Parts: sequence; structure tokens; C-alpha cells
Amino acid sequence: MSRQWVLARYIRELPQEEDFRLETVQLPPPGEGELRVRTLYASVDPGALSRLGGVASYAPPLGLGEPMTGAAVGEVLESRHEGFAPGDRVVGAWGWREHAVVGARTVRKVEAGAWPVSAELGVFGIPGLTAWFGILELGRPRAGETVLVSSAAGAVGSLSGQLAKRQGARVVGIAGGPVKCRWLLDELGFDAAIDYRAEPDLEAAIRRACPGGVGVFLDNVGGAVLDAALPCMAMRGRVVVSGLVADYGVPPERRAGVKNTPFFITHRLRMEGFVVYDYAERFAEARAELRRGVSDGTLRYREHVEEGLEAAPRLFAGLFHGTNFGRALVRVGQE
Amino acid sequence: MSRQWVLARYIRELPQEEDFRLETVQLPPPGEGELRVRTLYASVDPGALSRLGGVASYAPPLGLGEPMTGAAVGEVLESRHEGFAPGDRVVGAWGWREHAVVGARTVRKVEAGAWPVSAELGVFGIPGLTAWFGILELGRPRAGETVLVSSAAGAVGSLSGQLAKRQGARVVGIAGGPVKCRWLLDELGFDAAIDYRAEPDLEAAIRRACPGGVGVFLDNVGGAVLDAALPCMAMRGRVVVSGLVADYGVPPERRAGVKNTPFFITHRLRMEGFVVYDYAERFAEARAELRRGVSDGTLRYREHVEEGLEAAPRLFAGLFHGTNFGRALVRVGQE
Repeated sequence: MSRQWVLARYIRELPQEEDFRLETVQLPPPGEGELRVRTLYASVDPGALSRLGGVASYAPPLGLGEPMTGAAVGEVLESRHEGFAPGDRVVGAWGWREHAVVGARTVRKVEAGAWPVSAELGVFGIPGLTAWFGILELGRPRAGETVLVSSAAGAVGSLSGQLAKRQGARVVGIAGGPVKCRWLLDELGFDAAIDYRAEPDLEAAIRRACPGGVGVFLDNVGGAVLDAALPCMAMRGRVVVSGLVADYGVPPERRAGVKNTPFFITHRLRMEGFVVYDYAERFAEARAELRRGVSDGTLRYREHVEEGLEAAPRLFAGLFHGTNFGRALVRVGQE
Repeated sequence: MSRQWVLARYIRELPQEEDFRLETVQLPPPGEGELRVRTLYASVDPGALSRLGGVASYAPPLGLGEPMTGAAVGEVLESRHEGFAPGDRVVGAWGWREHAVVGARTVRKVEAGAWPVSAELGVFGIPGLTAWFGILELGRPRAGETVLVSSAAGAVGSLSGQLAKRQGARVVGIAGGPVKCRWLLDELGFDAAIDYRAEPDLEAAIRRACPGGVGVFLDNVGGAVLDAALPCMAMRGRVVVSGLVADYGVPPERRAGVKNTPFFITHRLRMEGFVVYDYAERFAEARAELRRGVSDGTLRYREHVEEGLEAAPRLFAGLFHGTNFGRALVRVGQE
């Protein structure tokens, strides 16, 4: 028997714990080409919200009663695929489940290394890859340019800023609260940090922190944050839209809306959205570079781990209020 | 003595006739390197509104009491520059004035040709060049892609659509009223036309007219029109922002705002604004191509000419209600 969280009701606005239901199920034995895995860590990812409203997004919507999906790392208990053996560590997208039967072709074997296995869900997972391609392929900051990052203490934002810094950019982060801001400055080497909770006028705060204008804005938030940044962009600035957390839980008619569009003309701005899976063929190469950066200490990351599968919905709801600090994970099983 | 329109009060929202004052002035004689010109046509351009609110935009704001600026074409009456002689036709930016004294280096001599001189303010002027670079440099439609154009019966929009058509694109225009829509279909060869006044749901109308999705959206309007188009974009669609007429007269807090930003991620969209003057070094080359297109009948244009300098403010105010049909000009002097 194995426990799993399923979607209990479609989420129209911000998520609540009651949107999920914990079920106990009997898993089938693995078929040919399948694996039975035991979950070690499951990720709790704000981007998942876009699939929980019952309407199509860049991934098909999750149906009611279906197990919550998301990246997870686990240990193979039983293998019916020649490439895997019991004891192997694998990463997949089986979600908030204690155990799962998964197709071997849907998982990636974790390379042995000096990193905790949970890092496969953060710095070496989709957040790290999103930061990598967002900065190096889309934003492409030049040395001396100012790079602004929103949700800067999050998994994508913190890595984006460090990668931009390695390109020689001046890096400014927007985060919530003095603790996160201090971490950006003292641990990650950001040049400036803006505590949006302490700033009644975010646009003015960005302008003060970026006196030469923002060359690249890597935005994970959207909404009012995006609108505040647009007037602060440098001529020919680029906005890379890697996430729009502010919009995920809000129906269009109630969104703040981007009103500073005339700056696209006056400042010749470019805004581009992307989905990191489009770069899947280059994941291995990027991941190798990320591993190198973590090994030599030039890339740092932070995890927010809560104990037990039970914690997942509460942690998920909290993400939209900034209660986490670092990549949000639940520890589901002991290593 | 010469008459000119000056800015009587800053325009915070939509323009009214009373925002301008007609003055009679005595012009100084031209100094060394200057010309005295008599205006034949003055352009009435919605984009000018961005300079009339007393705040900086991509051009410095016009001060109270200053003559209204804008493209004009005229005849040289007196020259103190060796490159010009009385009788030459020149294009400059001296605005809504019967006569002007201008620096010879601020004007361009009109090449003799088979076109009416007024065309220098439209198809061979900034609107034509905006369409040219907007489609060929930014939008770059591929054969078979659908190009959507807003304000499609306007000077920029009508040329953009025709240029996109020449690239092999399928072209859909948004315009106000059945007369303009018929012109797009019957005279310019657009593949479809959407009368936004007859469509309660613009997004649905765009979707019907662009079943394969919009590859390139050349937007002259912004606001609700931009928001309606975003969900209809094809994967990796490009939005070229060449004008935002819907936003010019509206303070940010009262703008509709772009709310469909999540489509930037889901559809990997790119949005880019531009100012055509950035391509000034290539104007002559583009203008030669535009002249060729008009000569061989493959590019058509339409002018909305009203008689007399007096008509300019009323025509300007009407632009924001779509009362013009074609490039708006006033005829100031007889050829």
C-alpha cells in the first residue's frame, strides 16, 4: 500500500491545503520496461499551479482525482528494464507519491557524485536549467550590464543571478524580507537587493538600485513587478519571462495587467517567454556545467525541506505567500 | 506674417481642438545654412500625442506655446544653403505652420517622380518606413505564416499588410467599419479583415480569422487589442509593437493593461518595440524599394486630406476615434 496526494478540486485562484486529498492505493506490479520506485524527495513547485485549474496550459491540465505530478527523486525497488537495477537513484515526474510505477524511459538515472540527491530537483533539475538557459540563451547579459532578477531568493532566481554574475554583469535581486536580501548580498554576491515588502514604490526602488537602467530582467513573477520594472529598463533592454507566479492563481479579469507597454517603444524593449523543455537536447551539457559550478563553490543553492509527504499541500499553498526560502521539497523517504 | 498652431495646454488624455491655439507670427529671415519654406502639406499623426503631455517620451515633450511639430512637405522660397534653391520641394518636421525657417540639414530634398508630393509624408515617409522595418526587420514573416495587423487601414498598417503579403504571408487586418474592411480585402489583397466594431469578442474573431495561429502580429494599437491577440498567437509568434495608440491618451492607472502575459511562456512569444529612426541609415534604400512598389502598382496607399491649416487640430482629435481613412494630412498651400 502506498499513499499519494490527488487533486480534490480545481484551483481557480490561490491553492489551499483542501484542494488535495491524501489517498492510499495498491500499486500494480511493474510491467515490461517499467520500474517500481520509492520516493526520497518530491518537489513542490509553484509552476504546477498552471495545470491545476482544469484548463489547458503549456501542459495538459490535471484531472480531478489524478495524483499530483511534479519532479521527484527516488530509489528503484524493482526493475523490468535492463538499464536499471534495484538501488539505482532516479529522477522523474511522478509527483507527490510514496511509491510509483513508472516507465523507465520517463526517468533519468542520477549520476553518483558529491551532491545530495535532493539537488537533482533544484540546481541540477528544472529550476537550475531554467536559470541556465534563461540567462545564457535568452538574456545574454554583457559584462557591465545590470541584470535584475525577481523572486531572486527562489531556486530559479538565485541561480540566474549567480550565472549572470559569472558573465560579468552587475546583479540586482528582488526578494521578500531582510533575511532573503542579506543572503543574496552576503552569500551569493549580488550587488544589490530590493526587499519589495519594505518598498512602497517598487519602481522607484528599482530605479535607485539600477541607476544605469536594467539591461536584462529575468522575471519569475509578472504582474505588478513586471510593470514596475519596464520603466527602469535600459535602452534595448531584454525581459526574459521565465515564470509568472503573480498571474498563475488569478483569473485574467482580476490581474493587475501590464500597463507600461509604451516603454517597449520608447526603450526598444524585447520581452520573450520560454519553456525550458525546448532545450531538452542540451540539458546534459548544461547540467554538467552546473555540477562543475556547485563542485568548485561558485554556484550556491538553498533548499527548503519539510518532513513527510503530508506537508506537501501546505508547503505548496505557502509558496504563493513567500513562506519558503529556497527550493521547496518534501522528504518522503529516508535515504 | 504666417500662421501656426501652438500647444495651448498639456494633453493628459485624448486630444481636443481646444488644446491648440492658432497664432500669427512674423518669421525671422533665414540665417546662414537655413531655408525659408512654404508648407504644402502637414501630417496629422497620432504618435505625436506622446509628446504633448508635458512629460518625456522617446522624444522630448513639446512646451506650452511651442509650435506643433510633425512631418511636413513644402517649397523652398529662400535658401541660404548651397544645396537648395527656391522652388525645391523639401520634407522636414516643422509641423503645423504656413511658413517656417528651417536648418537645411534638417530637411530632405524630394526627388522628382511620378508621385504626388504628399506621398512623401505617408508611403515614402515615416509611416511607410515604419511598415518596412517593422515587417522586414522585426516581424520577418515566413511564407505561409499568418500576419495580423491592427489599425490595418491606417498608413502603417495598410503598408505592413501589403509588405507581409509580398513575403508570402497570409495577412489578416483589424480595422473599424465595413468600408475599411472592404478596402483591405478588395484593393489591398488582405486575406481576411476583422471589423472590431462589429465584434463583441475580438479574441474569438481573431481566432476564427487565424485558425493556424498568428505568426507575426504587427500592432499599432496596444491595450485591449494586444491582449485579445496574445492568446491567438502561434507557437513562437512575434509581436512587433510599432505604435500603442490605445495607450497614448490614457494615464497608466486607467489603461486596460495586458493581462494575457502567461501566453508569453506557454506559446514562447517574443514582443519587441522599435522606433523607426534607429534605422535612419537605411531609409534611402528602403524608400527606393517603396517607390518601386508604388510605381509598379504592387503597393497601394490612401490619404485622408483635409483643406487648410485650420483643420489640423480637429483632424488630430478625430484620429483617436478612427474618423480618418488613410494617412491624415492637411493641405496648407497650393502646389
